[in-house]
Amino acid sequence: MDKSKVVRAKGYRWQGVPLREYKAEGSHFQAITRQSLLGEGADEQAINFLTRYFELQPGGYSTLEHHQHPHTVVVLRGSGEVILGNRVEAIDRHDCIYIAPGAFHQFHASRGEPLGFLCIVDRHRDRPALPTQDELEQLRRNDRIRQRMRI
Amino acid sequence: MDKSKVVRAKGYRWQGVPLREYKAEGSHFQAITRQSLLGEGADEQAINFLTRYFELQPGGYSTLEHHQHPHTVVVLRGSGEVILGNRVEAIDRHDCIYIAPGAFHQFHASRGEPLGFLCIVDRHRDRPALPTQDELEQLRRNDRIRQRMRI
Repeated sequence: MDKSKVVRAKGYRWQGVPLREYKAEGSHFQAITRQSLLGEGADEQAINFLTRYFELQPGGYSTLEHHQHPHTVVVLRGSGEVILGNRVEAIDRHDCIYIAPGAFHQFHASRGEPLGFLCIVDRHRDRPALPTQDELEQLRRNDRIRQRMRI
Repeated sequence: MDKSKVVRAKGYRWQGVPLREYKAEGSHFQAITRQSLLGEGADEQAINFLTRYFELQPGGYSTLEHHQHPHTVVVLRGSGEVILGNRVEAIDRHDCIYIAPGAFHQFHASRGEPLGFLCIVDRHRDRPALPTQDELEQLRRNDRIRQRMRI
């Protein structure tokens, strides 16, 4: 039985894919949704990685966090900024972002338009961790990060 | 040392990413290029999967092949068709395609415009196999596949 399939797109929604909250709980993010495109379905267990689409509305941001599993991100819609390790980078459509193990990161739709991106991760991965007070102090020593970060 | 990075896009080319031939040899494909976006670099070895961008010019096609590792594909540019297992599917921008283990597949820029897509695969994976004569006969029993396939 061939489990191959096409998941059809229409306007940044995908057929049969529910629009979900970014995370089930927490207040350290804003105006962000998640669609799980491939990898989580019962008939997609042969894939070792998950392909998700996140979209932030203008002013939205993801959690400032780090973890050991790397992220591969490809921007599909709009533009914004990302806190990436010890710096802030502008990002635009089709830019690819590599988030290395342990690097703090936070996405921001900070340019008055939505920011939508694919984020591909290992199926089996560690849980994200929020910054400790010490790590927050360290991050705040960088002016651009201090001005951009939301916690 | 944080290896995180942004690989910037400009018009379906990515900064610092060479435009390569689809495959080093063979005549079973046409008018197709490859850019390896994330995963193959020396500082990207923490990623367990490779993110590549393939682009077919109008009339171009990839190899008709199968393998045990699955493919996750996301169309970034244009439209076309894919032979996917035992059928032919139209594909358009942002559609996601899951190619299950063992499924024959071949991409076609058959609609008068380029077809560009991300293809994400395991870093460690089996080699593709071309169809045997028996498999070709089997595929040709489907009218749409027979008319579309190129070998």
